[in-house]
Amino acid sequence: MIIKHNRLLNNIHETAQKFGAKGVWGSDVTETGVCRLALSDEDKGVRDWFVGEVTKLGCTVKVDQIGNIFATYPGKTNGPPIAIGSHLDTQPTGGRYDGILGVLSGLEVIQTLKDNEYTPHNPICVISWTNEEGARFPMSMMASSVWAGNVELPKAYSLKSVLEPLDVTVKKELQRIGYLGAVPASYKENPLAAHFELHIEQGPILENLNKKIGVLSGVQALRWIKVTVGGRAQHTGTTPFNLRKDPLLAASKMMVVANEIAQSKGGLASVGILNLEPGSVNVIPEKVTFTLDIRHNLDDKLADIERECKQKFAKIAEEGNGTSTKESLTIEFENLYDSPAVHFNENTIASVRQAAVETVGESNLMDIVSGAGHDSCNTSRVVPTSMIFVPSKDGISHNPTEYTKPDEIADGCQVLLGAVLNYDKFLQSSSKNT
Amino acid sequence: MIIKHNRLLNNIHETAQKFGAKGVWGSDVTETGVCRLALSDEDKGVRDWFVGEVTKLGCTVKVDQIGNIFATYPGKTNGPPIAIGSHLDTQPTGGRYDGILGVLSGLEVIQTLKDNEYTPHNPICVISWTNEEGARFPMSMMASSVWAGNVELPKAYSLKSVLEPLDVTVKKELQRIGYLGAVPASYKENPLAAHFELHIEQGPILENLNKKIGVLSGVQALRWIKVTVGGRAQHTGTTPFNLRKDPLLAASKMMVVANEIAQSKGGLASVGILNLEPGSVNVIPEKVTFTLDIRHNLDDKLADIERECKQKFAKIAEEGNGTSTKESLTIEFENLYDSPAVHFNENTIASVRQAAVETVGESNLMDIVSGAGHDSCNTSRVVPTSMIFVPSKDGISHNPTEYTKPDEIADGCQVLLGAVLNYDKFLQSSSKNT
Repeated sequence: MIIKHNRLLNNIHETAQKFGAKGVWGSDVTETGVCRLALSDEDKGVRDWFVGEVTKLGCTVKVDQIGNIFATYPGKTNGPPIAIGSHLDTQPTGGRYDGILGVLSGLEVIQTLKDNEYTPHNPICVISWTNEEGARFPMSMMASSVWAGNVELPKAYSLKSVLEPLDVTVKKELQRIGYLGAVPASYKENPLAAHFELHIEQGPILENLNKKIGVLSGVQALRWIKVTVGGRAQHTGTTPFNLRKDPLLAASKMMVVANEIAQSKGGLASVGILNLEPGSVNVIPEKVTFTLDIRHNLDDKLADIERECKQKFAKIAEEGNGTSTKESLTIEFENLYDSPAVHFNENTIASVRQAAVETVGESNLMDIVSGAGHDSCNTSRVVPTSMIFVPSKDGISHNPTEYTKPDEIADGCQVLLGAVLNYDKFLQSSSKNT
Repeated sequence: MIIKHNRLLNNIHETAQKFGAKGVWGSDVTETGVCRLALSDEDKGVRDWFVGEVTKLGCTVKVDQIGNIFATYPGKTNGPPIAIGSHLDTQPTGGRYDGILGVLSGLEVIQTLKDNEYTPHNPICVISWTNEEGARFPMSMMASSVWAGNVELPKAYSLKSVLEPLDVTVKKELQRIGYLGAVPASYKENPLAAHFELHIEQGPILENLNKKIGVLSGVQALRWIKVTVGGRAQHTGTTPFNLRKDPLLAASKMMVVANEIAQSKGGLASVGILNLEPGSVNVIPEKVTFTLDIRHNLDDKLADIERECKQKFAKIAEEGNGTSTKESLTIEFENLYDSPAVHFNENTIASVRQAAVETVGESNLMDIVSGAGHDSCNTSRVVPTSMIFVPSKDGISHNPTEYTKPDEIADGCQVLLGAVLNYDKFLQSSSKNT
């Protein structure tokens, strides 16, 4: 079976134009970004459109308590469906592909099954997860977290918008747009057999290595640490080096050493925020605060990076100005956020890999680990899960210029179809064996 | 002749309490800072008081076109006076000593001459220079710059206040407080024979080395350079090191290397401001801007530091992420401010040194170069000039807790008296020889 990539592309571009087009970056009608905040009018618009399309294809539609839409195409059996899920909401300065590609490719998979009058063994379900971005209601991967049992429903309901209008909650907006469903938002009461997600890479690796498909083995472990270095505000002209306590010089050494540590351990370390006080050309800062973002594919290696960074940072602080009259700087660490490594299921990975080999050939695929979080991180906790990446031009995402080429999209959707059918066969043979 | 240090201390503390006391830091009445902005009501108050005191001592008082007050005590001859100058204005969060010590010690010198019925060879003049701080009207050492011919009078007149009320100019405020004088603000038409200034160190060196008096040889050369490093905003999780253009990592390396360069050349390099964009935990910055403040006693060494910093910074930028797939960062330099080294006159320095040896002994004095600018930088361009430093507790200045011990103040004023008398004798003997 071959997907119809023009139909998929049309759906991508038509929904982008109809439901939240924003951020023109080129002269073509397809060259505009999308602002489609979770539970906004634009979100309602695309949800209604999606429900209309899947209903035409004969899917049954369920909406759960947190607004997740489950569109299920029937199989030969009544077992739990194999899901294809992602999200239709975007960042305020979003593009047309992040999340959207996954849901609309799911729709294309169902359309292809229907075109070919193919009935799978298990039902196939396309899911639109609510509020993956966390841009309007500040919790990313919100509704898949609720479904997977990571977050309590009342907590998600009570989240308040951080964008105007500020006085609305998730529950109010679900009611307003008509997507407060009755189906329990729980993997226990609304189970799935597996979860597949096609997503743009949002990074530059595939493009840079000329690969067409990324077969994901999991998602990196991530930790955010706030580092505060305290020194002494002094006059830059009247204070010799040996009498200084310069926290910015120390922070500079820390940033350089964090990079070296992460490189040596095959992980990542990055500083995205740095603030200093008081901030005057001729005053040595009194205090420097910066965030350290560390990542690794493996939890224990991440712990190694954290431990070594903290040890070496503390040593740099203790050395102060590094002279014989050294006075130590103060240093404090605050761990802000922690997300353990995700390892996808070997059977779902195998289904993806086989489909990728058939679609683009061994030499055009690569194993890859996601550096960003996805709804699949949540589903992976409770059902076999895997993801497929397609290239992102220049690694750009969360930006109107986010772009993936039409043939790359076609390949991705074809691999998604293949992966789901492979896994469906796997389930069928497993059920025969038992 | 011995100065009466209690009288000097009383003058310091009484004027601090009467004219702008602000910023309590201890329980004693002397433990308060001063906010006495140039040409404010508080400035007028202390000026009126000063004019009253010097008039009682038999000084003639001249006010020039930019509000500088020249209080001249007669000598045996009518040559140009030997001046003792500094300033009575403060920073908004100022202390009781910065500038004020110099003017009130000048008053104490005159009082001591009068107590001892001593008539010097040349007249002795105490000067209160207008707006040294530049805190209200944004030009530091403003009126000594006009007098020395560095700044045109109309430019100084038209400076607008940067603090409320904003609609006033220097000229308006000079008129309002009654200090817009008629005497030409020019070293040519209102000449001096020399200029001596006693000042607090505003740095920690004397205190740290247990020295009582600093004999200044000059003022450091200073250059401020704005450095802008441009990279690429990328996701910290999805972008491997070899595909990054991280300007903060590069800036960190630059700050470390600037410190090494300055140390190796016996100068200073400091970064007081650093800004980055966009500033998000999981986004590699796109652009980093920082200020580099470099200083050295010698102009050519300062030029060496600048050249070497720029070369090594450019190399770091060119290396980009430092991997085999490196992409260069952009780098721009903007020179913001430049102040050449000041070298004081050997005869005035000798007068100070001799007085310091007599007052505190050879072992308690040290040669020192000022790291901050003073009115003496301006006078030094046109007349023999020297300065005397006394210790600053913890190097703190521009802060209510600014503090110099009573005995250190007494020593400083005694050295000032001795230096002026030594130079007066030098002028007398020079005039005999010619």
